[in-house]
Order: sequence, then structure tokens, then C-alpha cells
Amino acid sequence: MARVPTHPAITGSYRRPPEWRMNPVTGEWVIIAPERSSRPMLASPHVTPRTVRDPCPFCTGHEWHTPAELRAYRSPQSKPNEAGWRVRCVPNSFASVKPEGNAEPHGDGYFFRADGVGRHELFVECPQHEPNLARLPVEQIREVVQMWRERFIEASSDPKLRYAQLFKNHGADAGASVEHAHSQLIATPMIPPVISEELRFAMLFQEEHDECAYCELLHRERVDGSREVAESPSFVAVAAYAGRQPFETWIVPRVHHSNFDAITTEAADELGTILWTVLRKLDLALEGPAYNLVFHSAPFHEPPSAYYHWHVEVLPRLTQLAGYEWGTGSHVNPIRPEDAAVVLRESAEKG
Amino acid sequence: MARVPTHPAITGSYRRPPEWRMNPVTGEWVIIAPERSSRPMLASPHVTPRTVRDPCPFCTGHEWHTPAELRAYRSPQSKPNEAGWRVRCVPNSFASVKPEGNAEPHGDGYFFRADGVGRHELFVECPQHEPNLARLPVEQIREVVQMWRERFIEASSDPKLRYAQLFKNHGADAGASVEHAHSQLIATPMIPPVISEELRFAMLFQEEHDECAYCELLHRERVDGSREVAESPSFVAVAAYAGRQPFETWIVPRVHHSNFDAITTEAADELGTILWTVLRKLDLALEGPAYNLVFHSAPFHEPPSAYYHWHVEVLPRLTQLAGYEWGTGSHVNPIRPEDAAVVLRESAEKG
Repeated sequence: MARVPTHPAITGSYRRPPEWRMNPVTGEWVIIAPERSSRPMLASPHVTPRTVRDPCPFCTGHEWHTPAELRAYRSPQSKPNEAGWRVRCVPNSFASVKPEGNAEPHGDGYFFRADGVGRHELFVECPQHEPNLARLPVEQIREVVQMWRERFIEASSDPKLRYAQLFKNHGADAGASVEHAHSQLIATPMIPPVISEELRFAMLFQEEHDECAYCELLHRERVDGSREVAESPSFVAVAAYAGRQPFETWIVPRVHHSNFDAITTEAADELGTILWTVLRKLDLALEGPAYNLVFHSAPFHEPPSAYYHWHVEVLPRLTQLAGYEWGTGSHVNPIRPEDAAVVLRESAEKG
Repeated sequence: MARVPTHPAITGSYRRPPEWRMNPVTGEWVIIAPERSSRPMLASPHVTPRTVRDPCPFCTGHEWHTPAELRAYRSPQSKPNEAGWRVRCVPNSFASVKPEGNAEPHGDGYFFRADGVGRHELFVECPQHEPNLARLPVEQIREVVQMWRERFIEASSDPKLRYAQLFKNHGADAGASVEHAHSQLIATPMIPPVISEELRFAMLFQEEHDECAYCELLHRERVDGSREVAESPSFVAVAAYAGRQPFETWIVPRVHHSNFDAITTEAADELGTILWTVLRKLDLALEGPAYNLVFHSAPFHEPPSAYYHWHVEVLPRLTQLAGYEWGTGSHVNPIRPEDAAVVLRESAEKG
């Protein structure tokens, strides 16, 4: 198994703060975060998640393993950073970005960089050592979604920041380095490339069709029906027409809003319910797959957009990203989305 | 371990030809290739590579395991599809795209698709069961590069195709499903998003600075020196300033050419030599890492471009792509490129 050498050039940078750098030939901003290379077992992409026997930093009773909590849902008698919580939000111990610093890019006219400004928060999704969100009661997922909503709204008020990425890595194959169910928020002063490109395309679509591309998706998918996975009064879950990963499933709100922070607490509860349904279907159909879950929402500090529409993408990780995908940004999906939808529709609790 | 269910909806599509589909909300083209889901062990991203004891489809003596060869470098006495070859190019048995069909997109005004037209070729890099290109003699790598050059030029003459991606997956963590050293070419009628974006940015750079962004990179990196890894008369290898993966290394030709197919056979030999040097350095420094190798070149059937500059990117796979990267297209690299360059410069054969 490959490993990163413990060379003084590497270890000597462990304490360097993170830095944004612009790739001078593509314009892409990358975070260089040397502190993260001191994480346990970085060198193997197949990180063996900590088992229940190791001291799990996220289990109740181990609150001192993490930085002081930013927010928690806890019983009224309990105290911050002690037991008694149900969902907990803390700063990431191995943060990719830090709140301090100057986000203004500077450079020599060719190589540009900026301080690694941003927020990196971690959500511990339950107090007990349960790795799988899909196996928690639906009420627990609803509280997780409420916490995501709160912290997202909180990040969106920061004038230094322009975008927040809410995401979840489940399983080592999806990049999780800790087994205990958790999710994360990284908020940045840069609008990342996937979002810029989605915004650009959605704006073109609106100009051409006088309609939001996602509202049109909801309409077309309802008429077609072959890719529908689940639905509820305010949300639709569909197998993505051009999914990049097998069983890629999108959850799209029926009512047009460009920003996730516009969601009501009632709708957040309902999102928790349909998310639980989708995750259980994937868990049953694929026998406990690793997956990533990502939110897409419009940038902060802008008026609500008529062309962009926030949504959630669930990406099971059944194939490895290889050279073709890295080289081109294109994807090869070996499962037809309509076939995946059949399997997921049929996949439900027995009895 | 997760697995794809053997549901009739899935197995019933095994014989469907591949299809291009456009994501209606991003404009991204994805290949849906159901035949590939019949590949052995698709379901696990940690494909256990076939070991030497299993019948390796790429070893000499097993030529009948692959489709008939498109080209081979072989001893004059030997016959096609028999032993006696040194490097062999065959169609991929589980092709993502196929030569037949109509590449013209068609749709209902919202969902667009096209036949999965393209070429998917596979290069077997040596006759014996050696997984690691870096452990082959340098002469062998030079012949591999010559074969890449030949097949790339051959693909570029096809009027149906606009782009060819040459790439190599080494190790299961980099997506290789067969252990025996091999690489691939996928040529498509679409220009993929990473290339479009690179072309767009390079054109803007040229407009603003009246210089090729890559020629400027060569100049700046020579003056700076801190990211240099290796060099030869016609090529420079540098740790990428904003590398997305730890130890990401680029090999850039000193002379400006937009297209890889402009390379002379002499320069292809020299590329083989510097590639061998870089791969050996990575192999020694990181103790046999998985990696992807990708070529970037300008699209076919266009006049040579003053702003684009072909190059090779070597991406060791030491971190797993997780939700943040999927959600945003942004990357977090825990190793400073200057630190990686120190390690790689020092990493060389001991006398």
C-alpha cells in the first residue's frame, strides 16, 4: 500500500495554514491544506474506518475529542460539550479552510494565491456509534436536516463567503475517514466550478425557454415516470437522466427556490423524510453502498434567482473514478438510470 | 461490500449498445454503457486485480482473450494475435463507446441523446505479467509511447471524432480492473468539459498576455525552480502549482504544439524516457502508489492553436474523491507541491 513519506519537507509543513491557489492554466482554485496530511492514515485512499473498539471521536462521552461545539440539539438539563445531545455541530479538527485570513487573491501576475479562508464544520448525526444514517429512526434524520439548515443559514450571513457546500461521505469508498455517521459543510469565498457551470447553463436555459431548467425537469419526469424513485408533497426523487454514477438519485423540491436557506422548518422535516426513504432504498437495493450526498444551492448575497433551483444529489460510489474521468471530466455510467429506478422503486421495507 | 443487484432490469440491459446522454440542467454529456456492468466485479470500487494465478487476459499466450489486435510491435517471424509481440493494441472488450452509430444528438427538446459512438482501445504494455510500467526497462516505455502516438494519429483522422483521451489507470485505487500493465484511448465525437474549459481559459490568457499560458508556465517554473521534478532537452516535469492530488506532476514539452499528434518519433522516445524517470521517482517515493496518467491535447480537425499546449498529467491517487469534490469540482490537496517536488527530486536510483 502506498504511503506519503515522513520526509522533513512534508512534516515541516504540518503547521502551515491552508492556502487557496489558482491553477494558472485552467483558472481553477485548489485548497492546499498541509495540516490535513497529518490526519491518521491519509496515505491510503482505502482508509479503514475506525471500529467501535477504537476510541471513536464522535461518540457521546468523547466530546473532548472534537473542538468545542458550535451548536447542538440536546436535552434541556445537559451542558455544552457534554453528553445529552442528539445532533452536534463542531469545527472540523482537520479543517481544509479556516475562518481567519485575507480572502483577497494576490500574486505575481501569473501564480495567484489567497489565505485559505472559509468555514469547515462537521455534523455528528447521532450520539451512539451508528455508521449508517439509513438505519437511524426517521426523526433523527429530520433533526440532522434541521441542523444543516441552521448552519447553512448561519454561514450565508458571512460577508466574506460566497458559497457553502453541504455534503456527506458515507463509507471509506466515498472518502469517509471516520465510521460514525457524520456530514460536513465547507463554506468558501470562491464559487466553485461545478456551481458556476450549473448557474451558467441554467441561465442560458432560462433565456432560451423562459423557464427554470429544474422546474421543467420536474414536469418532464412526472409525465415520463420511468425515472421516478419516490415522492412527497414538496419533493420528488428521480434517477438522474444522465447520472454520472450508477443509481445516482436527485431530490428536487417542487416549489422553485434558488437557495436552500429559503427552506421552511416544515419543509426541512419533509426533506428529512424523503431523504431517509431514498437512503433506505439504496441501502437495501445495493446492500449498504458507500455514497456521497451533496447539496447544490445558489451563491450567497445575491437576489433569489429565477433560473437556479436548489437540490440534493445522492451518488452511490460503485465505480472508481479513473483516468478517463480525471482527464476529461466526462463520466461513464454502466447502469441505465431507468433500470436503477425500477430497482429502487421495488426496494422497500417488507411488511 | 456493496454490490449491484442481479435484477432483471439490470441484466436485461447488458446487451444494449452504449448511449450518449446530455444532462438537461448542466449540459454535460455522459456515456451510459450497460455492457460494462457485466464486467467482472464491477460492484466493488476496490476491484481486486487479477493475480498472476488467474488467467490474465493480457499475458502473452492468452491473445485469444482479447478482440483481434489493431496494431502490435512484434518480431518479424511472429503472426498477428499470437506470441512474439512487445506492445499490443486491441479494442477494449468492455467498450464504453463503439465505432458504429449516429453521433448526431436527437431528443424531445429537453432530454438529448446520441448513439454511443467512439473508439475505445486498449494498450497492453508488455507481454509478461508485470503490473508496474515503472519497473519495465526504459526501452519498453519508449515503445509504449510510440504506440500511443500511432493510435492517437490514427484516431485523429476519423471525421466522426473530435477528441481522444489517452490515459492509464495503475492500481485498483486508480480504477484499474486488470493488474497487467495497460493503458487506454477513448476517442469521442464530443469535446469533454475539462478540455473545453482549458481551451477557453488558455484563449483568454492568450488574448490578455499575447502568450501561451503553458509557455509562460515553462518560463516561470524555470526561474522559480522550487517545483521542478525532472527535465530533458525537450520536456520539463514539474509538481503542479495548484495540484489537485498530492504529488500531481505535469510533463510539458518545451516546444509549443497544441496537438500531441505533432510529436516526432524522436520526441516520443524522449517522452518515454522522462515519463519513465517520473514514474520511477513516484514509485520509489510513495512506495508503489496507484496513479492515473492523462494526456491533454487540442481537439481534432482544427488548425494548430497558438494558445493551447499539449501535456501529460500524472495523478497519484493518495486521497479518495469525496463529497466536497463531487459537489463542487474543487479539490483539497494536503501536500504542498513544493514539498512534493523536494521529495521527488531526491528520489532517485541509488548508484
